[in-house]
Amino acid sequence: MYMANNLVISIGRQFGSGGREIGKGVAEKLGIAFYDKEILAQSAKDSGIVQEIFESMDEKRTPSLLYNLSMGAGYANPVFYAAMDDAVPTSDKLFRWQAATIEKFAAAGPCVIIGRCADYILRDQKPFRLFIYADMESKLRRCREKAPEDEHLTDKELRQKILQMDKHRSHYYTFYTDQTWGDKLNYDLCVNTTHTSIKDMVATIARLF
Amino acid sequence: MYMANNLVISIGRQFGSGGREIGKGVAEKLGIAFYDKEILAQSAKDSGIVQEIFESMDEKRTPSLLYNLSMGAGYANPVFYAAMDDAVPTSDKLFRWQAATIEKFAAAGPCVIIGRCADYILRDQKPFRLFIYADMESKLRRCREKAPEDEHLTDKELRQKILQMDKHRSHYYTFYTDQTWGDKLNYDLCVNTTHTSIKDMVATIARLF
Repeated sequence: MYMANNLVISIGRQFGSGGREIGKGVAEKLGIAFYDKEILAQSAKDSGIVQEIFESMDEKRTPSLLYNLSMGAGYANPVFYAAMDDAVPTSDKLFRWQAATIEKFAAAGPCVIIGRCADYILRDQKPFRLFIYADMESKLRRCREKAPEDEHLTDKELRQKILQMDKHRSHYYTFYTDQTWGDKLNYDLCVNTTHTSIKDMVATIARLF
Repeated sequence: MYMANNLVISIGRQFGSGGREIGKGVAEKLGIAFYDKEILAQSAKDSGIVQEIFESMDEKRTPSLLYNLSMGAGYANPVFYAAMDDAVPTSDKLFRWQAATIEKFAAAGPCVIIGRCADYILRDQKPFRLFIYADMESKLRRCREKAPEDEHLTDKELRQKILQMDKHRSHYYTFYTDQTWGDKLNYDLCVNTTHTSIKDMVATIARLF
């Protein structure tokens, strides 16, 4: 029903809501490209900035410890050094490289893009904008199921992590778009995964196109 | 995908977003009952309160002029009089009659129910909760298309009417549910009708069940 010469589906998602899984499933069902961490890898390649810096600043305005450690390596790289200038904060520079990557991906063919303000960056070509969310209980459950074996967080710590991740995403989105993250008016469809299976939702969303 | 012995779909909607049309279409496609103004008619029948009072207070906490005019007729009706007591404001009484009607309808069989806090009233039986919304431009357009021939509002007046209707719905909902009207966490699916056709959306939603 959503016709476009070049279909782009952008997915905003709360941490633990299953947004990435839905995006991956929809892309597979439609036979189109899927970009999540690939955005970081490509941006690193194009910019010459080491990928770890993109990763440690991924959808964040505030760098993590890893970022500070990486800075030495980053500055040692002449391309990274050249890409920096004193007038522009680093996070803005990283955002611009990622925005360029997102535009390149979207121009290359139909695709699903996860997070990173893609809905806003591509606004002129009217992507289909999804937002995936859920209540805290089901996000905790989903995080538990998908946790690496060496993760041993208490419920309280996991809840804290979920809130923290979304706080970063929200600040990042608001800073670069001047819009409110998760405000339904910025999306075409908002899906609550609390009472649904990801598999069923993938099928439903794929049928939209 | 949403299994229930007794499927109930509740629809919250912004004025002019096409929520009623979507609800009617989905009910027809699924072959289930559809309740909108029928809630007022049944509540009037059960309570003995004249239907005009329900209509003039429909999803409002503040009565319109018509309501004040009707009050004479209402009080002249002994059943209406009996249903009133000084301790309870009239709008609360009307809400309770409508809540009873909504429960009766939901118990009678699968159905779609438009507005009137049905999502909250029926929360124990977990209805599928839809919220339909759109941007102001497309709500203005839709209202123009559906306006009665004798309606001659300027754009400014129509915009004002749309805002006013939603303000009433929002206050009414918040007062009786202690939840925020249109807050996506209170819904399973939020659909933006700005860039979509109602017909396509009916088909998509009906396929969920």
